[in-house]
Amino acid sequence: MNIQVTPPSLPEEPNIELPLADARKAVEAETGRIPTGPRAGGVKVYVQGELYPEIRVPFREVAVHPSANEPPVTMYDSSGPYTDPTVTIDIKKGLPRVKSSWQLDRGDIAPVANPREVKPEDNGHASGKHLAPRFDTSNHQVFKGVEGRPVTQYEYAQAGIITPEMEYVAIRENLRRQDPNFKGASESAQVGSDRVATDSATRDGESFGAAIPDFVTPEFVRDEIARGRAIIPHNINHPEVEPMIIGRNFLVKINANIGNSAVLSSVDDEVDKLVWATRWGADNVMDLSTGRNIHNIRDWIIRNSSVPIGTVPIYQALEKVNGVAEDLTWEVFRDTLIEQAEQGVDYFTIHAGVRLPFVPLTANRVTGIVSRGGSIMAKWCLAHHKESFLYEHFEDICDIMRAYDVSFSLGDGLRPGSIADANDAAQFAELRTLGELTKIAWARGCQVMIEGPGHVPMHKIKQNMDEQLKHCHEAPFYTLGPLTTDIAPGYDHITSAIGAAMIGWFGTAMLCYVTPKEHLGLPDRQDVKDGVITYKIAAHAADVAKGHPAARLHDDALSRARFEFRWEDQFNLGLDPETARKYHDATLPKEAHKTAHFCSMCGPKFCSMKISQDIRRDAQAQNDAGASLVDAEAGMAEMSAKFRAGGGVVEVKV
Amino acid sequence: MNIQVTPPSLPEEPNIELPLADARKAVEAETGRIPTGPRAGGVKVYVQGELYPEIRVPFREVAVHPSANEPPVTMYDSSGPYTDPTVTIDIKKGLPRVKSSWQLDRGDIAPVANPREVKPEDNGHASGKHLAPRFDTSNHQVFKGVEGRPVTQYEYAQAGIITPEMEYVAIRENLRRQDPNFKGASESAQVGSDRVATDSATRDGESFGAAIPDFVTPEFVRDEIARGRAIIPHNINHPEVEPMIIGRNFLVKINANIGNSAVLSSVDDEVDKLVWATRWGADNVMDLSTGRNIHNIRDWIIRNSSVPIGTVPIYQALEKVNGVAEDLTWEVFRDTLIEQAEQGVDYFTIHAGVRLPFVPLTANRVTGIVSRGGSIMAKWCLAHHKESFLYEHFEDICDIMRAYDVSFSLGDGLRPGSIADANDAAQFAELRTLGELTKIAWARGCQVMIEGPGHVPMHKIKQNMDEQLKHCHEAPFYTLGPLTTDIAPGYDHITSAIGAAMIGWFGTAMLCYVTPKEHLGLPDRQDVKDGVITYKIAAHAADVAKGHPAARLHDDALSRARFEFRWEDQFNLGLDPETARKYHDATLPKEAHKTAHFCSMCGPKFCSMKISQDIRRDAQAQNDAGASLVDAEAGMAEMSAKFRAGGGVVEVKV
Repeated sequence: MNIQVTPPSLPEEPNIELPLADARKAVEAETGRIPTGPRAGGVKVYVQGELYPEIRVPFREVAVHPSANEPPVTMYDSSGPYTDPTVTIDIKKGLPRVKSSWQLDRGDIAPVANPREVKPEDNGHASGKHLAPRFDTSNHQVFKGVEGRPVTQYEYAQAGIITPEMEYVAIRENLRRQDPNFKGASESAQVGSDRVATDSATRDGESFGAAIPDFVTPEFVRDEIARGRAIIPHNINHPEVEPMIIGRNFLVKINANIGNSAVLSSVDDEVDKLVWATRWGADNVMDLSTGRNIHNIRDWIIRNSSVPIGTVPIYQALEKVNGVAEDLTWEVFRDTLIEQAEQGVDYFTIHAGVRLPFVPLTANRVTGIVSRGGSIMAKWCLAHHKESFLYEHFEDICDIMRAYDVSFSLGDGLRPGSIADANDAAQFAELRTLGELTKIAWARGCQVMIEGPGHVPMHKIKQNMDEQLKHCHEAPFYTLGPLTTDIAPGYDHITSAIGAAMIGWFGTAMLCYVTPKEHLGLPDRQDVKDGVITYKIAAHAADVAKGHPAARLHDDALSRARFEFRWEDQFNLGLDPETARKYHDATLPKEAHKTAHFCSMCGPKFCSMKISQDIRRDAQAQNDAGASLVDAEAGMAEMSAKFRAGGGVVEVKV
Repeated sequence: MNIQVTPPSLPEEPNIELPLADARKAVEAETGRIPTGPRAGGVKVYVQGELYPEIRVPFREVAVHPSANEPPVTMYDSSGPYTDPTVTIDIKKGLPRVKSSWQLDRGDIAPVANPREVKPEDNGHASGKHLAPRFDTSNHQVFKGVEGRPVTQYEYAQAGIITPEMEYVAIRENLRRQDPNFKGASESAQVGSDRVATDSATRDGESFGAAIPDFVTPEFVRDEIARGRAIIPHNINHPEVEPMIIGRNFLVKINANIGNSAVLSSVDDEVDKLVWATRWGADNVMDLSTGRNIHNIRDWIIRNSSVPIGTVPIYQALEKVNGVAEDLTWEVFRDTLIEQAEQGVDYFTIHAGVRLPFVPLTANRVTGIVSRGGSIMAKWCLAHHKESFLYEHFEDICDIMRAYDVSFSLGDGLRPGSIADANDAAQFAELRTLGELTKIAWARGCQVMIEGPGHVPMHKIKQNMDEQLKHCHEAPFYTLGPLTTDIAPGYDHITSAIGAAMIGWFGTAMLCYVTPKEHLGLPDRQDVKDGVITYKIAAHAADVAKGHPAARLHDDALSRARFEFRWEDQFNLGLDPETARKYHDATLPKEAHKTAHFCSMCGPKFCSMKISQDIRRDAQAQNDAGASLVDAEAGMAEMSAKFRAGGGVVEVKV
């Protein structure tokens, strides 16, 4: 594999003002900007594919101070072309469409002769100045799978075919650690990987039965997808995506929710939040817009997104029937699925597990049904006293989604909304149904993941994972938190990070973030960032605890920087260099302090790290001088004299 | 027990400007204020003792909207007299000295004839304008235990004596839930407690062998202290304290660290941080001041603190020898212990487990020794090549601390400073030594708790608790976090809250907070608040998971408020009402929205809680109409008609 490095001589953290001013509301200055340019302290590098040389997998590479004598640290990079200074960003045109044309060349997909036209109800009948501007899609051909040909990653995997997407994610998951037995492994990328045992037999972690390999190969990816244990959410109509994988045997991923509501937000606010969320590390983004202009906003988001976009189509379907749940029909829903699939949505939350018989199970809950989609469907079921049309038409839904490779995110419409309701009969009845539906979706060629809670106290989290693995046949689990207590509105990113880290450790493949505004209001820019960083922490803590062979490299590199007072390295290796630097500078702002061997927490005299360094340095000097092993009581005065003269630690039998 | 309620007609959240202006630096306006007045939404209530009627145990009572038809929620209140509007606060005079004189009456303690005089080195030889003003201690008699009489809570407990402190904490732990079999149980305090099973046999939780009773009695407290499983840190010279208990079978507590350093901070900043930390819920505060003015700052802190204050005496001892670790002596240390014990410090961190033979075990660590006290002692041991004087003089230390009932916090000087170093030989060698020292301290009448890490990945946390229980004979565990990953400087309150919640669940009795500034700088006011709230979350999540019979009441009350759109109740029942309200108002500021049945996250049409409420209301109407059970297929059209006509949920066989 060839490694291309973008030259590091780039402007630091520029914010480029972008067009779309006509649609811009008067919001605070910062929110109107799309953040571009490389992230602090890192450069963008690409690794080329071997099976598919047209593949270029992005990473963020952070070099450390030469005194460390260490190779740069390679980090997973979800930020897309926005952090590549060689790419010109114009959100009016959208991102470059990077997906290969191989499906087209093989005749697996074909242009749709008569794509669905945009209808007034798609945007809630917004008109005039209330109508968000349309994204110019005139150059965007709509594709669909050809009858009788494979089109989904699941179908290719089952057929034994390694797709470009599979090689892409294999390269991406290895973080430039390379299998020494694999041809093309570069010397420089090897250094550092030996600091943690990567042999699965001696690995430092508890994986609860996951089967994480030392190195991910394209064949391993294919096999995991074929088993249904992983998905690559990637609609054929979203060629802007940089493929990523969701599965228990890969790095834990995070999802950020954005989207306007009937109350707030505008087109460019949402594009800004999308770019902002991915800049800080969101692997996926769900557009949960409600209200008017849903269709137009979605075009802007998808055409400018390098990460998979998920939606909950029932939200838009409900808008089309003026918010009256009882008026929903299969026909309206089906039309919405096609509309969104043609736009390029990568996965749909489908609440087909909210069955009529389960609704009464929620009647005595403390917080009833808290999923929006779940409550809409529950209301429909009760109003008609009929089984859910999503459940009844599930095979039809599969066939539509398969044709574009839209992945299922089987929604947990009956998830608990409070600690009191966790793990109850309603929740687990739905989970078992999701397991049945998983098999149907697989049988019809679809990729599937399963949504999970919600609000769960710590002692009930493991059961969620165990039940999911048991009933859903190892399809990837995708949970919202869970929150571990209900008492901290304003801090639910934290109440939920506790649960998210734990369930990620137990085997959840993707964690849906929760922001500080949860339960209170629509997240703003700062909330999105807080949510993303918090969930990057949870996901990484889970990777470390699982014993993922790549995870600890990052912790150890940062810890060495910390111990050696390489302040700039410590900032740059952190999840949020700017904030770390700002906090440091709040008390020790001078540039000279960046090389100081202390921080303001202890001050120069007391720094324990400094004392500990002295101890180690003395030990080294002692070793260099060839000091011999001594017994505890023997030669103490001598040792003391040596230490005071510049000697130091001597091994003593304990 | 009599319940006294302070009338609720009080000014909301006033910030009263206090004196000490002469010593005040030009810091930002807000930090110069000592926050007083009741916390938002609550009133201060007191419960009187029965064995000791002079006891008045404070609680914060939050009433909910009358529509809820629920009793007020009683919360643990660590905020002291500062939130009691009937108490006049003057930090120049200090808090009222509430501790009873019963020890004096019985002749167990006596005034010290010649208390230690303040020496110039106690304040680092600061003088003139560099010397912080002295607190006027002329009215503060210094006491000491009388030879041959019990003085510590451990000694009283062993002698079968229930002290006022023991009854105080028993009342406090029950949160006004009262044993129905206990005389004096009030009717009103019972309501709500039946919402969660309080019978330990059917309790919803996993306590890992803890023995949390349904109701805490004074005798239970005595027994736990006598077994060494709990402590009431409470120096006889700190009569301002409102007693609290630390033990695995009680509510999980949190500690906040404050203190100046050689670089930053002033007297009133520290008093402000103390009051601020306890206002948000800190149960204990450690004064980790270094640099000059340590003695004087400590007087201000202790005399104004209603929570136990801990220190690390080695910090001051080191100041007395000009920061040269090798120059430390037992005599300097002993003098410092007496100085601080006479001032009223409630517990001392003593790093007596950092033994000479263990130091070389740290030589190959990624981050060496990161405890300040640990590294000081390691350096001393190496410089002299002698066993630690803390270890050698441990019995002398016990005798000094016993005489004032200063509790031990046996320091973990060799705790890991990175994920890489967790659970290593050095750490566990020290832990076993702390277990030996625990037995010695108990034999000499002292109360003991054990400090724990640090940086530990999730899969290694449980082992820390198990080893501690095994080797330290169930003495309370008191951990710093632990941080579960090293990659997020600026967010270590979150990386550590994950570990803290888990280790609290496993049995840790007190969690030492970590602020966002950890590793970067000295925490300011906002950092202190963020740290405290984050750790209240971790501690409460642990209580819930352990199945503490009182914990869930709070979650459930808040969840009911959430479900019923009682916005004001949701704010007031939260850990931080102001922030919750601010977040809500950021998008829906109008007063009318406080009664709105939606938030800006979903908007009015989509609110799932609202739909779910409709479902429940319909179900109720249906039940009231006497609807009969029907089979899934039978009578659907009829049921549908009923639902549309205002009927609703019908039970269906699943």
